[in-house]
Amino acid sequence: MVRTKDIFLKDISNRKAEIYFRGKKLSSPLEDDDLRYAVYHTARLFEYPKRTYFNEEFKQEISKYYKIPRNSTDLLERHQLIYDNTLYGYGLFNISQAIGSDALFALLIVSKIIDKRAGTDYYSRVWNYYRRVVSEDLTIAVAQTDVKGHRKLRPHQQPDPDLYVRVVEVRSDGIVVSGAKAHTTHAVAVDEIIVLPTRAMTQHDKNYAVAFAIPIDAPGLKLIVRETGKVGRTFIGRKEGVEPETLTIFDNVFVPWDRVFMFGEYDYAGLLAITFATYHRFTAVSYRAALANLYLGAAYKMAEANGVLDAKHIRDDILEIVIYKEIQRMGALAAAMYPIVQEGVAIPNPVYTNIAKLYSNAKFADVLKATVDVAGGIIATFPTYEDLENEATRKYISKYMRAAVDGETRIKIIELLRELVVGGGGWYLTTMMHAEGSMEASKLELFRSYDYKEALDLVERLLE
Amino acid sequence: MVRTKDIFLKDISNRKAEIYFRGKKLSSPLEDDDLRYAVYHTARLFEYPKRTYFNEEFKQEISKYYKIPRNSTDLLERHQLIYDNTLYGYGLFNISQAIGSDALFALLIVSKIIDKRAGTDYYSRVWNYYRRVVSEDLTIAVAQTDVKGHRKLRPHQQPDPDLYVRVVEVRSDGIVVSGAKAHTTHAVAVDEIIVLPTRAMTQHDKNYAVAFAIPIDAPGLKLIVRETGKVGRTFIGRKEGVEPETLTIFDNVFVPWDRVFMFGEYDYAGLLAITFATYHRFTAVSYRAALANLYLGAAYKMAEANGVLDAKHIRDDILEIVIYKEIQRMGALAAAMYPIVQEGVAIPNPVYTNIAKLYSNAKFADVLKATVDVAGGIIATFPTYEDLENEATRKYISKYMRAAVDGETRIKIIELLRELVVGGGGWYLTTMMHAEGSMEASKLELFRSYDYKEALDLVERLLE
Amino acid sequence: MVRTKDIFLKDISNRKAEIYFRGKKLSSPLEDDDLRYAVYHTARLFEYPKRTYFNEEFKQEISKYYKIPRNSTDLLERHQLIYDNTLYGYGLFNISQAIGSDALFALLIVSKIIDKRAGTDYYSRVWNYYRRVVSEDLTIAVAQTDVKGHRKLRPHQQPDPDLYVRVVEVRSDGIVVSGAKAHTTHAVAVDEIIVLPTRAMTQHDKNYAVAFAIPIDAPGLKLIVRETGKVGRTFIGRKEGVEPETLTIFDNVFVPWDRVFMFGEYDYAGLLAITFATYHRFTAVSYRAALANLYLGAAYKMAEANGVLDAKHIRDDILEIVIYKEIQRMGALAAAMYPIVQEGVAIPNPVYTNIAKLYSNAKFADVLKATVDVAGGIIATFPTYEDLENEATRKYISKYMRAAVDGETRIKIIELLRELVVGGGGWYLTTMMHAEGSMEASKLELFRSYDYKEALDLVERLLE
Amino acid sequence: MVRTKDIFLKDISNRKAEIYFRGKKLSSPLEDDDLRYAVYHTARLFEYPKRTYFNEEFKQEISKYYKIPRNSTDLLERHQLIYDNTLYGYGLFNISQAIGSDALFALLIVSKIIDKRAGTDYYSRVWNYYRRVVSEDLTIAVAQTDVKGHRKLRPHQQPDPDLYVRVVEVRSDGIVVSGAKAHTTHAVAVDEIIVLPTRAMTQHDKNYAVAFAIPIDAPGLKLIVRETGKVGRTFIGRKEGVEPETLTIFDNVFVPWDRVFMFGEYDYAGLLAITFATYHRFTAVSYRAALANLYLGAAYKMAEANGVLDAKHIRDDILEIVIYKEIQRMGALAAAMYPIVQEGVAIPNPVYTNIAKLYSNAKFADVLKATVDVAGGIIATFPTYEDLENEATRKYISKYMRAAVDGETRIKIIELLRELVVGGGGWYLTTMMHAEGSMEASKLELFRSYDYKEALDLVERLLE
Repeated sequence: MVRTKDIFLKDISNRKAEIYFRGKKLSSPLEDDDLRYAVYHTARLFEYPKRTYFNEEFKQEISKYYKIPRNSTDLLERHQLIYDNTLYGYGLFNISQAIGSDALFALLIVSKIIDKRAGTDYYSRVWNYYRRVVSEDLTIAVAQTDVKGHRKLRPHQQPDPDLYVRVVEVRSDGIVVSGAKAHTTHAVAVDEIIVLPTRAMTQHDKNYAVAFAIPIDAPGLKLIVRETGKVGRTFIGRKEGVEPETLTIFDNVFVPWDRVFMFGEYDYAGLLAITFATYHRFTAVSYRAALANLYLGAAYKMAEANGVLDAKHIRDDILEIVIYKEIQRMGALAAAMYPIVQEGVAIPNPVYTNIAKLYSNAKFADVLKATVDVAGGIIATFPTYEDLENEATRKYISKYMRAAVDGETRIKIIELLRELVVGGGGWYLTTMMHAEGSMEASKLELFRSYDYKEALDLVERLLE
Repeated sequence: MVRTKDIFLKDISNRKAEIYFRGKKLSSPLEDDDLRYAVYHTARLFEYPKRTYFNEEFKQEISKYYKIPRNSTDLLERHQLIYDNTLYGYGLFNISQAIGSDALFALLIVSKIIDKRAGTDYYSRVWNYYRRVVSEDLTIAVAQTDVKGHRKLRPHQQPDPDLYVRVVEVRSDGIVVSGAKAHTTHAVAVDEIIVLPTRAMTQHDKNYAVAFAIPIDAPGLKLIVRETGKVGRTFIGRKEGVEPETLTIFDNVFVPWDRVFMFGEYDYAGLLAITFATYHRFTAVSYRAALANLYLGAAYKMAEANGVLDAKHIRDDILEIVIYKEIQRMGALAAAMYPIVQEGVAIPNPVYTNIAKLYSNAKFADVLKATVDVAGGIIATFPTYEDLENEATRKYISKYMRAAVDGETRIKIIELLRELVVGGGGWYLTTMMHAEGSMEASKLELFRSYDYKEALDLVERLLE
Repeated sequence: MVRTKDIFLKDISNRKAEIYFRGKKLSSPLEDDDLRYAVYHTARLFEYPKRTYFNEEFKQEISKYYKIPRNSTDLLERHQLIYDNTLYGYGLFNISQAIGSDALFALLIVSKIIDKRAGTDYYSRVWNYYRRVVSEDLTIAVAQTDVKGHRKLRPHQQPDPDLYVRVVEVRSDGIVVSGAKAHTTHAVAVDEIIVLPTRAMTQHDKNYAVAFAIPIDAPGLKLIVRETGKVGRTFIGRKEGVEPETLTIFDNVFVPWDRVFMFGEYDYAGLLAITFATYHRFTAVSYRAALANLYLGAAYKMAEANGVLDAKHIRDDILEIVIYKEIQRMGALAAAMYPIVQEGVAIPNPVYTNIAKLYSNAKFADVLKATVDVAGGIIATFPTYEDLENEATRKYISKYMRAAVDGETRIKIIELLRELVVGGGGWYLTTMMHAEGSMEASKLELFRSYDYKEALDLVERLLE
Repeated sequence: MVRTKDIFLKDISNRKAEIYFRGKKLSSPLEDDDLRYAVYHTARLFEYPKRTYFNEEFKQEISKYYKIPRNSTDLLERHQLIYDNTLYGYGLFNISQAIGSDALFALLIVSKIIDKRAGTDYYSRVWNYYRRVVSEDLTIAVAQTDVKGHRKLRPHQQPDPDLYVRVVEVRSDGIVVSGAKAHTTHAVAVDEIIVLPTRAMTQHDKNYAVAFAIPIDAPGLKLIVRETGKVGRTFIGRKEGVEPETLTIFDNVFVPWDRVFMFGEYDYAGLLAITFATYHRFTAVSYRAALANLYLGAAYKMAEANGVLDAKHIRDDILEIVIYKEIQRMGALAAAMYPIVQEGVAIPNPVYTNIAKLYSNAKFADVLKATVDVAGGIIATFPTYEDLENEATRKYISKYMRAAVDGETRIKIIELLRELVVGGGGWYLTTMMHAEGSMEASKLELFRSYDYKEALDLVERLLE
């Protein structure tokens, strides 16, 4: 069944999750004026014109997000889907079926590998769950990053054992887990949540080697939402809503066995973590390339409005953003062209994925800097929203914001840049540097996975 | 007379300026809960323990800010005064007598030069004004940057002649000016405002070559304040207040002759602009070096709290901030050591001042990036202030924020970093890149003022 | 006819070009011990195992370099051909049929465009010439960059009219040209030379809008070779030879009409220049990605030899080189995937080509820096070649160069790094920054050719 | 006694050192055409006009290099001495009395500290040696960096115990040492060599904790010289000579007790190493600031010659070099202003010294890059020296190198840039990155020595 916006809205209004936001306890995001925009954002996914296709295996229309990539072409289409949907979303990524499919692809691969080596039956559980997700057209959040406590200690070494999510009880019908995950994106406005390990583990961390899925209204699951700002007052919020993170608390949450996808196989925790990460970084560079258009377009228009589009340093700034956008695309294209196929599923090439992701993390500060250089100080010192609505002040502001374009036109560009830089710049910088893995995470994986043989052979032939 | 905090507060409560903020018209900053913090900030200047000294010429105790620098030692002391006062102000620069003295020193020099060449008597006006400022211990804002319209056109070429502040009427008792200045810092909470030209001018721009001083409550002067955020909810705001900018409108403002310091001498507009800028950039690198301690201290404490102070990439991040702080100090010290003395007044060396300033503008994005790298994504996804006050959520947050230090300690560090980066990062980045002159402004001046002779002589000797 | 190495060597020994090298006039590169290595390098092309394929149109085996790209697949194969042949050549690009084909593809496209608009018959001349080149399996150099005189003046404005190559006489059987081109790579050891305009031109520069081909032994053509160093003493020189540049003088050189491909069509000079440049930059990032393996392999081996492969800063250095290599490949792959097809010929996407090329120019200094950081000071202070052959010193050197590997092994790595950095680093840096176009050239083209519509549409929708 | 050039030349011609160069064994640098230039360089020191002053303590004229710095003024003068002497030396540092005094100042301090704690009498030995050096006006090389073997192993853990210089025998009259030091600058053309430990040591490394001085002709000391190139053919070599490094072998070298300055006090090895390093890095940034004038002057003249001095990217390049030069000076000035005084001797402030040094190491690649960007590809493809002397080719080269200046003038600038970049760029880059300590060395010391208290206090006050 393909859900429509209306069906989704009806479904979500029936879910009772335990949400905390701005000091209040809510049982639905719809109870808060700002969180309501999170639901609006998920609903927008169902309006995206080209979201579904007819799947031959399931004999039904399904979401393209859930199409299992088998080859380069599938990965290229997936890249373009995420890119285009982000543009459709005014530069705001729509994670609602993207991250869930990233996790499911990783689980489909790794569960089969574990089954082969350990004689378990995880794959059929994953497959059944995947099948249900697809046929019910569900939306999913993924909780991976544990709160992690002392960064130099392994899970079992932490002073408080709950600093990584762990199994606290094994029952005949399932397991009970406790702990907390940080940075879970958009859990407040989706149907389900998939939980994955965050790192490689040793045998002492066995209780922490756990992966599973639960509905968002599972008892004991608590979502503490980050500050979202006044969503309705921003251009992007007004048009597209918001995608907030939560600190996600697991307080003795029960998971039935058919939803448990890893249970103690500590030596595969790292593989599952990194396989998911590779898919998700491919997703990341796809949506971030689209997001970059916000900065590119706004900077370009400001340069035009100021009459300085031909100034050399302004052009360099604009090219900085162009290159930021396109190197991410280049990485996604190359990663799609040279996938690694495991268990019949195509994984984006990790070298190109991680290089593009590293560039994305490392250079966003330069994108901000370039944007600020073009924008000028006015975006920081501009009068308040309310003074734009007050005729006594608006007349002055409009008169004096005139440049190569009229004042009213320039005011809107200034306001957008204020939103992208002054209001949101610090937030964007932080998430661009840490979401979907930090620079160090990409560097580690890149150094580890890179094949130096070609270079070493060359040098050895030369020194012969 | 040296003013105390109480005298200042009484004085300011008697001033009726025309202020616009958040859609309302105020006649005093004290009428608004957030702007009140701006007054508090100015008042803090009068509490600064070592603010005054006994001046032999005036035979009275005066503010050290108004001590005319005559040599290296005076400039070194001025640097240290600004640095220390900024630390006293929790990293927030206190502009209230700093920028005014920067302007007055420039006016003392340039007015004498103009008088010599043009037979005018500006110097005595400037001196009398300076004398009154000093003896009444006044606080001053400076309005320099015009709104500027089309950036490629000169003042007189603009489609609207008001896009640079200009003389619209000459009367027997003074002049009348109209136009607008952008980014005027802290005008809402000081006694006076000095207006300076923003650029070099041609004879067609004669009406725009104007400098003067007016009280903040001069009729026709309108201050439209920027968004300040909820000041009382930030660490710095709560402790030290705020220093907001205004869009400053001159709607037929009258200036009596004794307060007019330049009137049509277009060929000195550039000299006045750049002399002020040099003093002010010296001030800038002095307070910014102090401000950098906020990022340095917060990043260091977070690294400690996470248990990663010995990780190589974390150390590199911390060193990035150390170097940012200290290169600014190095520049200030060198600029003070090799001043240019004009008309008996010592100007900080423009080469070292501009190099330090350029570094300050260009590298703050890297300071932010380093801080974010250390801070982690948690500063973007952390729950709201209100959830920290709700016992139901605080217990979880506290439990799960534990790392190498307890949760409560780490929460405060996270909140501070959230303030410095997520809340304020975009704003800081913009002002660090544009306040006191952009990168291009420093580059232009550096290229222009640098003496290439030493290098060219060396090469010519070598090629002989 | 596909030439073999032996046939080529026989042919080249029969050509009498006018060559100047180290103060001597030669009539063949074979007359000089070092230039002989240039011939050896061309000859190596004919040994490359997979150089030819059967061409259906010509019904014969031809060089893959001359395969006209019609689509993505052809461009991908061309990228891989250049990459692999460069690895085969120990990291030294083999330009002998690469640059000529870059020029011919551009001429095939642009001549057809000119013919359509101007009613000329250049295309058939180009096609006939191309046909002969292919069937005789010729090698070609391309001379594009004029010596250019005063950089701010157009060709016709120069004090000496010869500072750009120009037509000095028109005859019934052809034209006579004079002037000089700089940086002509490998002209000393190929069969033919193609001459292209270097920039866009105005109608006043009509005499300079000229393109043609001549044999390397055309009367009046003089090749003044750059310093090559002692080729036989380097690892790369010994194994693969050398590819030297010349200052190429045209002293009244006659060109028959059937070899003239542009004659006065000044408004197409820019199009021809940039079309060739796009092909050639695609070639550039292809060979440079392969060349990067030299630095990557040498740095990796040195890190291993020193026992520091796990040091964080060393890993960062190695990743710098990995990323340099792979971003170039990413760019080539993306450029091949999204070609622009004109007149039936596929041009690599100029956006991706120029981004990759710009990265290649701009970041080679960082590759050198990373390599030096890994290599250590020893590569600058290492004893001479001769002391390695002297038993009295070699025993000490061998004893004291021991590290995580034995001294003899490490000596070779040091010698290679000395060659790549101390001997050749400055030369490589210069050519990596300027060959196939400078940074500014790529920036200009990128800013010009980039389609901002997607970004502007997004922003406009948002501001609606 | 103050030596003159002639006395020095007579002295050096009487010294018989064991030198290996280009496969030959020499007993004096004067026996080789290129090494002769090394002697010439040392001799130039004695021609430097303002080299000596009257020392009150010794009642004689002595070299200013040996003036013990007691305060800021002395350090400022020392900075200026090194800077000016380097300019006098056409940009080539003159190490002949600089590095020796750096070592002696460190030894004067550390020997006194050791004596106080260990009851030894090193200080009097150091003082007597210093006294003799001063009164005989000797020149000195310093050997600090051991060859170091496996970088992760301490001296005593190395597979070959000689990989760090060590005591192999203790006799009643002195000690016998063996091992090798790398990168010893200019040992071939000075009187004496001082040997210092290269790192902190543990008690197991006791035999390696040794410092001493020996004459350059001490039996068993062998100097294997690096490649110098054809010195007489470069501008700098011809005018100023050369300062070559050696691999310095100690093959059972005897050192009498009065020349032994540390013998087993392993816990002070680190202090001695770092104290010397601080002085020497101060020296480094002083001479490097002067050296930067070569690149600055050459780039400026080339920009002028090409007619592009007003192009924005060219100005940015030139400013890059200006800033490189001046940040080093700023660091030296600040380091001199805030010295650390120990045992009555002023040590340059390590924070400012290391920041300036780190900048110097890290940014030279950008100086090279900026220089290449200005210079253009011509410096890599320019004809050979010999072709400039051949009239048949020179006429063409001269005609075609004309730009905004005549061809002959531009040829010389090209040749100088070729020397600085193509010939010497890789060598300069390597030494600028590693001489006087690598980037990691400066970072380690900076992180260790930095006082975070000011920043931490600020943050703690704020969080209170």
